[in-house]
Amino acid sequence: MSKEITSRAQDYSQWYNDLILKSGLADYSAVRGCMVIKPYGFALWENMRDVLDKMFKDTGHVNAYFPLFVPKSLFEAEEKNAEGFAKECAVVTHYRLKADPNNKGKLIVDPEAKLEEELVVRPTSEAIIWNTYKTWIQSYRDLPILVNQWANVVRWEMRTRLFLRTAEFLWQEGHTAHATAEEAIVETKKMLDVYADFVENWMALPVVKGVKSPNERFAGAEDTYCIEALMQDGKALQAGTSHFLGQNFAKAFDVKFSDKENKLDYVWATSWGVSTRLIGALVMAHSDDNGLVLPPKIAPVQVVIVPIYRGEEQKQVIDAKVQELVKQLKALGITVKYDDSDNARPGWKFAEYELKGVPVRVALGPKDLENNVAEVARRDTKEKSSVSLDGFAQHIQQLLEDIQQNLFNRAKSYRDEHITPANTWDEFVQTLDTKGGFVAAHWDGTPETEEKIKELSKATIRCIPLNNTEEAGACILTGKPSSQRVLFARAY
Amino acid sequence: MSKEITSRAQDYSQWYNDLILKSGLADYSAVRGCMVIKPYGFALWENMRDVLDKMFKDTGHVNAYFPLFVPKSLFEAEEKNAEGFAKECAVVTHYRLKADPNNKGKLIVDPEAKLEEELVVRPTSEAIIWNTYKTWIQSYRDLPILVNQWANVVRWEMRTRLFLRTAEFLWQEGHTAHATAEEAIVETKKMLDVYADFVENWMALPVVKGVKSPNERFAGAEDTYCIEALMQDGKALQAGTSHFLGQNFAKAFDVKFSDKENKLDYVWATSWGVSTRLIGALVMAHSDDNGLVLPPKIAPVQVVIVPIYRGEEQKQVIDAKVQELVKQLKALGITVKYDDSDNARPGWKFAEYELKGVPVRVALGPKDLENNVAEVARRDTKEKSSVSLDGFAQHIQQLLEDIQQNLFNRAKSYRDEHITPANTWDEFVQTLDTKGGFVAAHWDGTPETEEKIKELSKATIRCIPLNNTEEAGACILTGKPSSQRVLFARAY
Repeated sequence: MSKEITSRAQDYSQWYNDLILKSGLADYSAVRGCMVIKPYGFALWENMRDVLDKMFKDTGHVNAYFPLFVPKSLFEAEEKNAEGFAKECAVVTHYRLKADPNNKGKLIVDPEAKLEEELVVRPTSEAIIWNTYKTWIQSYRDLPILVNQWANVVRWEMRTRLFLRTAEFLWQEGHTAHATAEEAIVETKKMLDVYADFVENWMALPVVKGVKSPNERFAGAEDTYCIEALMQDGKALQAGTSHFLGQNFAKAFDVKFSDKENKLDYVWATSWGVSTRLIGALVMAHSDDNGLVLPPKIAPVQVVIVPIYRGEEQKQVIDAKVQELVKQLKALGITVKYDDSDNARPGWKFAEYELKGVPVRVALGPKDLENNVAEVARRDTKEKSSVSLDGFAQHIQQLLEDIQQNLFNRAKSYRDEHITPANTWDEFVQTLDTKGGFVAAHWDGTPETEEKIKELSKATIRCIPLNNTEEAGACILTGKPSSQRVLFARAY
Repeated sequence: MSKEITSRAQDYSQWYNDLILKSGLADYSAVRGCMVIKPYGFALWENMRDVLDKMFKDTGHVNAYFPLFVPKSLFEAEEKNAEGFAKECAVVTHYRLKADPNNKGKLIVDPEAKLEEELVVRPTSEAIIWNTYKTWIQSYRDLPILVNQWANVVRWEMRTRLFLRTAEFLWQEGHTAHATAEEAIVETKKMLDVYADFVENWMALPVVKGVKSPNERFAGAEDTYCIEALMQDGKALQAGTSHFLGQNFAKAFDVKFSDKENKLDYVWATSWGVSTRLIGALVMAHSDDNGLVLPPKIAPVQVVIVPIYRGEEQKQVIDAKVQELVKQLKALGITVKYDDSDNARPGWKFAEYELKGVPVRVALGPKDLENNVAEVARRDTKEKSSVSLDGFAQHIQQLLEDIQQNLFNRAKSYRDEHITPANTWDEFVQTLDTKGGFVAAHWDGTPETEEKIKELSKATIRCIPLNNTEEAGACILTGKPSSQRVLFARAY
């Protein structure tokens, strides 16, 4: 195999980068912290996006599109939100370049084209959207507003990683407006459930649903709900968040509505988002030292068929059979690719599709045809078997379902084995250092203690699980009383 | 009707704005020249995008995503392209805001967070993409690259119009790389055909396919092919362009490949795009003084059903029947909305859906039910008819096809009547002033004359039609010899 991949044991972080780059998901770009999503990576994102988009629409949401730029005066209106994002935002200050008089063929910023008011490239769109909702909402009849946007956003992160943390990323952001706090909270939780459903049942990645501690809340939110997943190196990854924004943005942008009794009140808000970061989670959760392992339900190619032949005559016989099989597979809604290109040998192709994480590989040679079978290899376990060509498509369909389920089960076992209770500080630190994963520990509930724990252990509170068990205990650091365990982890 | 629309006769331009705003397609925003695409407008764009996306994939293209920002040094690499867009680009110069020490709660640009190199917000992506292709292309085996991107771009236009010309807009941009000029030219023309197919057969808008004069070429292109449509006020609108870029970008970014004989050569390029501007074209081409008229094949809602009733008992009977009809319509792939909301009277709803351009409106009352009929109104001609509920869905399906065809025929008649030959300067100007539309006239082929004609008449050369008839004549302005007529028009 020409494309060497660092093993996980050797260097997990390099393994991840190798996978992303060599499988063709993404590339570095000439812009600091920004990446190029290559066709294979984008096809994966399209599949994820399409499923999510349908889920949003099925729960009553519609898409819209708001400006990329946020004028500084709007950006600063909701103070906590502004404070949270001001440190890392790209700012447009000019609207023209001009020829450099001292350097032929070069351009300089035209100082005469300075904007009166600077524009922030959206790091998130609450400000621009709530400034718009102000004109859309007068009465309770205008509510709820259930809008989602698919967009690019920019956060000037200092340390970036492909997919996991990039200066520009693609995401969706839902922004809803409601007449009551109760309704907004129901919406917040509903969308958390949609995310959990998607990540578990499509990405085959088990998650813990919970609520963030105040320190980890979205800037401007009253409450941030989240789903947390576990990667193979024992680090946690926040896979999606859903925020109850209270009336914070309504107040900042003066968005009021008259209720049925004609009384004026501020509107209640939620926002929720997932991003291309999910692709990073997918890669880290399932893949192995040979390459990606993609869940069948979102894989761009679910089945690849490779012919094994010598000479054109053999190939024609195989071609004819493959055409039949492809037709049968497609009829079951299976995405299949027949790779009969003659510029690579079968062994090279096998390695290439393993690297790309194609769930099922089928090899078909003259002897197979004689025996009316094909060799079928599943990517998750690497098991090979000889499968009859009678009822072949049905067999593959079942196999894809098995793989999907197996990936979930495997990730769930790993995750379940990596939720470890710790009752003393030593246990806590030792678990983080040797085993990793989530550590369930008592915490005294103060931001100061949380901050201190982070400083000492590099672990943060990932979430307070929903429907958490009440249990009296003592804070892992301060010994102060606590009524429940929360989940700590080192995280991406 | 509460939502008054200016008539076309009174003020065409105001009519257009009224339609966009009051039908709920889009809104102005707080950002100069940027608009908000509202849910109804975005649903229309989604339908258009999905059809185009399928057409691109059916012709072998894949999607990818490249950074929003172009470093200034890359932006200036292809000189003509840079010169063309430098005048109107948004420039990011800083990556942080900080608290204003003199103004509590306000933010200022942090002077210490100045970028070493300014970033241009992409007005088009040739530069960033060809800089990337450099690393993707070594040999002829890596070609062709057939990539498309759906993205937002920014051009700092001084005079903006909703959809037609906005500072930020959504579009797709195809960027392909080829081993030969011939292949690239075939691709350029193929994508022009895809655009013409889409605009004519989905948007019901006839176009003239042609090639631009040098003055109107895309900055950095060797040849710009275009499709030109005609609006109801006699002005032309460029609906899509496909560029043969020669080796200009390959040379600017040093992208070479080794051919089968191992000889190095620069790669050949095309790019092609259509944008949300198409929505403006759609509105201007088909709509009337009562509102939008949307072609059924891309309308977000194809059929709306409005119940006419008094009291809950009557409504229940209608509801039951409508459920049946909705099921039958959906089975034929028809998008149908049952508007049984009780907060508006039928007359108000009729006007509202007329405004929104829903192709077919069905009204159903107790008397209709007794007679086993429904009242069906088509939006394009406003004709009403009583239609039997037996075979109802099939009737509607046929009606939608008729409407689609009628819109195209109507626009085509108008367009054909508005291609007027002119043989003298007076004729030329008079046609533009009184009749509008395309004027077919001789031109001496020089940029200077084209520029002068534009100055004197405000008309530009829209295109030199493909497969144009050769005809000896004299330039409309200079009297110099010419071998063919070209199409002039005043344009959006």
